[in-house]
Amino acid sequence: MANILGEKLKIVSFGESHGKCVGVLIDGFPTGFKIDLEAMQKEMKRRQPGQSSLVTSRKEEDKVEIFSGIFNGLTTGSPICLLIFNKDVDSSKYELIKNLPRPGHADLTAYFKYKGFNDYRGGGRFSGRITAGFVAAGALAKQLLKEKLKIEIYAYTVQIGKIKAKEVSLAEIKKNPEKNLVKCADLKAAQKMEKLILKVKKQNDSLGGIIECLILNPPVGLGEPVFNSLESDLAKAIFSIPACKGIEFGVGFKVAEMKGSLNNDQFYLSQGKIMTRTNNAGGILGGISNGMPIVFKVAFKPTASIGQPQKTVNLKTKKPEILKIEGRHDPCLVPRAVPVVEAMTALVIADLSLQAGSN
Amino acid sequence: MANILGEKLKIVSFGESHGKCVGVLIDGFPTGFKIDLEAMQKEMKRRQPGQSSLVTSRKEEDKVEIFSGIFNGLTTGSPICLLIFNKDVDSSKYELIKNLPRPGHADLTAYFKYKGFNDYRGGGRFSGRITAGFVAAGALAKQLLKEKLKIEIYAYTVQIGKIKAKEVSLAEIKKNPEKNLVKCADLKAAQKMEKLILKVKKQNDSLGGIIECLILNPPVGLGEPVFNSLESDLAKAIFSIPACKGIEFGVGFKVAEMKGSLNNDQFYLSQGKIMTRTNNAGGILGGISNGMPIVFKVAFKPTASIGQPQKTVNLKTKKPEILKIEGRHDPCLVPRAVPVVEAMTALVIADLSLQAGSN
Amino acid sequence: MANILGEKLKIVSFGESHGKCVGVLIDGFPTGFKIDLEAMQKEMKRRQPGQSSLVTSRKEEDKVEIFSGIFNGLTTGSPICLLIFNKDVDSSKYELIKNLPRPGHADLTAYFKYKGFNDYRGGGRFSGRITAGFVAAGALAKQLLKEKLKIEIYAYTVQIGKIKAKEVSLAEIKKNPEKNLVKCADLKAAQKMEKLILKVKKQNDSLGGIIECLILNPPVGLGEPVFNSLESDLAKAIFSIPACKGIEFGVGFKVAEMKGSLNNDQFYLSQGKIMTRTNNAGGILGGISNGMPIVFKVAFKPTASIGQPQKTVNLKTKKPEILKIEGRHDPCLVPRAVPVVEAMTALVIADLSLQAGSN
Amino acid sequence: MANILGEKLKIVSFGESHGKCVGVLIDGFPTGFKIDLEAMQKEMKRRQPGQSSLVTSRKEEDKVEIFSGIFNGLTTGSPICLLIFNKDVDSSKYELIKNLPRPGHADLTAYFKYKGFNDYRGGGRFSGRITAGFVAAGALAKQLLKEKLKIEIYAYTVQIGKIKAKEVSLAEIKKNPEKNLVKCADLKAAQKMEKLILKVKKQNDSLGGIIECLILNPPVGLGEPVFNSLESDLAKAIFSIPACKGIEFGVGFKVAEMKGSLNNDQFYLSQGKIMTRTNNAGGILGGISNGMPIVFKVAFKPTASIGQPQKTVNLKTKKPEILKIEGRHDPCLVPRAVPVVEAMTALVIADLSLQAGSN
Repeated sequence: MANILGEKLKIVSFGESHGKCVGVLIDGFPTGFKIDLEAMQKEMKRRQPGQSSLVTSRKEEDKVEIFSGIFNGLTTGSPICLLIFNKDVDSSKYELIKNLPRPGHADLTAYFKYKGFNDYRGGGRFSGRITAGFVAAGALAKQLLKEKLKIEIYAYTVQIGKIKAKEVSLAEIKKNPEKNLVKCADLKAAQKMEKLILKVKKQNDSLGGIIECLILNPPVGLGEPVFNSLESDLAKAIFSIPACKGIEFGVGFKVAEMKGSLNNDQFYLSQGKIMTRTNNAGGILGGISNGMPIVFKVAFKPTASIGQPQKTVNLKTKKPEILKIEGRHDPCLVPRAVPVVEAMTALVIADLSLQAGSN
Repeated sequence: MANILGEKLKIVSFGESHGKCVGVLIDGFPTGFKIDLEAMQKEMKRRQPGQSSLVTSRKEEDKVEIFSGIFNGLTTGSPICLLIFNKDVDSSKYELIKNLPRPGHADLTAYFKYKGFNDYRGGGRFSGRITAGFVAAGALAKQLLKEKLKIEIYAYTVQIGKIKAKEVSLAEIKKNPEKNLVKCADLKAAQKMEKLILKVKKQNDSLGGIIECLILNPPVGLGEPVFNSLESDLAKAIFSIPACKGIEFGVGFKVAEMKGSLNNDQFYLSQGKIMTRTNNAGGILGGISNGMPIVFKVAFKPTASIGQPQKTVNLKTKKPEILKIEGRHDPCLVPRAVPVVEAMTALVIADLSLQAGSN
Repeated sequence: MANILGEKLKIVSFGESHGKCVGVLIDGFPTGFKIDLEAMQKEMKRRQPGQSSLVTSRKEEDKVEIFSGIFNGLTTGSPICLLIFNKDVDSSKYELIKNLPRPGHADLTAYFKYKGFNDYRGGGRFSGRITAGFVAAGALAKQLLKEKLKIEIYAYTVQIGKIKAKEVSLAEIKKNPEKNLVKCADLKAAQKMEKLILKVKKQNDSLGGIIECLILNPPVGLGEPVFNSLESDLAKAIFSIPACKGIEFGVGFKVAEMKGSLNNDQFYLSQGKIMTRTNNAGGILGGISNGMPIVFKVAFKPTASIGQPQKTVNLKTKKPEILKIEGRHDPCLVPRAVPVVEAMTALVIADLSLQAGSN
Repeated sequence: MANILGEKLKIVSFGESHGKCVGVLIDGFPTGFKIDLEAMQKEMKRRQPGQSSLVTSRKEEDKVEIFSGIFNGLTTGSPICLLIFNKDVDSSKYELIKNLPRPGHADLTAYFKYKGFNDYRGGGRFSGRITAGFVAAGALAKQLLKEKLKIEIYAYTVQIGKIKAKEVSLAEIKKNPEKNLVKCADLKAAQKMEKLILKVKKQNDSLGGIIECLILNPPVGLGEPVFNSLESDLAKAIFSIPACKGIEFGVGFKVAEMKGSLNNDQFYLSQGKIMTRTNNAGGILGGISNGMPIVFKVAFKPTASIGQPQKTVNLKTKKPEILKIEGRHDPCLVPRAVPVVEAMTALVIADLSLQAGSN
């Protein structure tokens, strides 16, 4: 396993879904920064389970407890240890299926890689629950970016199933996602998405979707090519979110169909700053931010845990079996992934900012 | 800059497009491995410029010279230094435009990040030419994977402009791409792609496309979650290839529209091995290879250098100017990116194999 | 700050002397290893404060609590989080002297480096208390080395003040140190050392000393030159122990006075294994273990906290002041450093073993 | 092998003694810095072989050739590749002894670790010759430190065999070492050392010694505890120099015999700056520079290659043999190690300076 991410600002992820806690350690956070604990807890609430009928019914308060690195409300320069205790753990369902790898889950690969010694309860280390730690760490990074560099990060759902959000104004992007359960900036699409999720939930099935992330006011110069380019580092961090299967920057895969004359963002001068009218590049040239908003999209697969019978193979008997997963699951994990995308993005941008010496 | 990639098998990239050379250092390559120099040079030939009317007319022999780490034809365990000298360098065009950042290029971001001290000639460090080093290093990784683990890697063009290749058989994937100039496994589509490129070239324009990469016979267990997952490490490496704007694994962005019941790859037993009939996950579960072929797609933008007039801003005078790029460029870089995708993939897979102790 | 050590087996140190806890995270520990918790707690007891009149009177149970990574008593491959809560904290003394840097301490440098935001209570992050986490992590490494590779590690005091231990037999090295309060293998010297410490304690003064460390049964091949040589990695880890000021391998600084003909350890064959009769090199040639016992010595300075009046400068008033340190301190930290040296050594050797693939 | 050192300023070492070249890559060097090539070459001359009767007669010009990263005499921010070609290679002697590991050398350990595939000629990767690359890289770091931070680094011989240099003034430290062949600041001792080396050379024997290194004008705050402390990072880098067997900071091993009241460097105010009258700590408190000169000593063993007959074991026949080493060797490597100590020190200090953001 490799549970450390970052160069100058590093996070270390630990903990399991049904263990004592999930947690995160942050090393390299600048000293003397006033932490807003309430804002951090608010971020936690955005990915918290048990909030509505759209998400898992597991009840977790997800209160972040600080174990080190903060003194009198300010960062000390020492590693910050944040813990979120697991409280509403029900492992009973997992004993029954511990030899039956769930399709679409890490059960099978974890079993072989860790020789059967991995904590299988609730997916253990491979549960989406570990992202609670990501969000806690990301909350600090977001505060740092906003206060020190005026950088803001917004993620929001742009597609669930076949329902796609329309493009909306920046003002709507900033305020709408928190107004609906699916965290979509297009409120009409949001309503449809909610309905669709409830419908599919009744079918014991699940849905995937796409999240867009927007980084406002980035300085020119973030990204350390050739191997720690802005795209490379963001992609690496985002693919650490369970269920992520694709990432694209700017117009993304559409570049395949665009000619250079159309795709190139031409330059113009605006108040002494070189800008582009289009932003097909998603704010990144040569792996380095060009000062335009950074934009990317992330694809999440439908929740692997579904109530329908599925084919699997018993790891002990080596016989085929039919598995029907019980337990509590999100019919669509996209809404809860929105703050996680923001968190990982904030951590990468903060790290690259510190590397670039712009902080 | 950050020019080191990998954990156990590391590569260090160096050199510039119009400098003395481009090169690569490989640290951590297993000892006592017999290098096939001819096979390495063959890989170089696959990305070599000047091969046809579809690519840049710059003539480079791209002969790899070994400067360290190999003794009597075998690896010694010491770092392997590979150099490719630049021979056909024509920097004259670049003096004229050194203050005119080319749209779609790294000129602007490199200028600001490196305070104007970067070597701008031919894009310098941001030129696609640095991938010659990637291919040289990747050639060794491919040899290692094939000989020690029977892992094979095939990349091939699946889309250029709006022309999409059909799905073809594995046999065709293995033999067809080397038979046509665009490295496509669907020979009919290949013909259309070639024509399209020539047409667009005449328009002084350029084309993007999509490359698919297939890793055959991977063992179960590659990938080090949560942060060095198979997707994370592949994405990081692939985004180091200039012009890459998106990556997706398995069905990729299509997961958004799939229900869990359809997307989950159900398990069955085949000759004592647990397999899946579908491979929507692209051979990866929980960031770890599940033994099925690993599949991913990569989007490349159209070559930024085009002969058409484009708007830019003079970095010295801060005045708008019209830029018309001369010099030699690929109208579509996708065909030459194919061996580069294979190379970066091979390096990541070799690194993760060594980390997993399976080598 | 940089709180992560190791390549394949990594530890992350966190926590402060007077905060909630000190702790350690271990990433990369092999899976399926049965942890002996009692043995771990026994190691903790060896460095525990409050054991005798020779050490600080601070009473800490130093019970290690496992927060992640262990399931059913076995390691899972996930990061192992170990916490030791601080219980007997008395910060009252530190408020009075928070602007008066203690000579010989990190107070001054931490104040400037962390701009006054560091947790100064009890030395905060610079307290010897953080080594409780080292010992906890090291205990697991020691168990792993002993069980899997038959490697054993013994550290013991060889000098305190001017009292030097005589060379004793291996049998005595294995059993004697735990029989006396100063952890010396020469029992006669031990008595003198104990007396000396008590005497110096009464003078409100402190003593330094030297610890020797012996690694028995190392395989040939540990160490990754040129930069992660066995000496480099051991030195780096050992200098992370507060108060360490020197390290030497084999005959160490005495090499200066030896001729090559005397210093070279000549080879002979013993039961099919190439060995040396002398071991001036301390078991290391070219930065790699040669199969002979690895031996090194570490110098620790006298405890900086002494009850005598000392000159300092007030950080706020910028005026000279006389400081008289109260609080509870070890008159000689050497005995409690013995298990810490063993722990750091075990962590390095385990890491290099895993890197060498010999585990 | 692990051939990469540093966090923010990284060097990669490569090449072999009797291969095509030795070299070094520098990644992370600040952009826009004017390189003084003549000064670099002057540093090379200080460790160059063939200069006098005191050192090996191998004739190497040791001209550094720049292969990347410098444009118009200025650093570009790209990796700097420096190569030193091997010219006076005579491998004939090594064929005869390739199965006879030389006592005190890495031959035995390299053979086993790299399974016999290592380049054994002239010690290959384990030759002191690789330090030519260290010196080239270090020369750039020295220039950077001097120009940007006014930091100067002086290393000098303080002991060879039993001849110890007296303490001399700072003025003498700055000018004397370059005036004599042993690089000693005490000119009288220098004469004796030279004589001793010639005498021992005639005996076909070799000598060790001690080098002291002084870092003038360091800022407060260098060092990243707990694991990248100033001592940790310096020790790690210094032990990468072949033949180094010990390092001590400030009074070093003498701390064992000092009481706290004597060892603590008490504070006083001088022109608004907090200083200490003694510098027993060698300028380092809590692993962080305190603004006083940083001082440490390094022990080097006598050259392992001696002309006297020595016992070894044939790796093929597994029979004992008597080995008489021919070839060209330094009777004492200490004088040539002086610039190497300076180089590694400069690289560490530059790296930590960049990490601390003070550059």
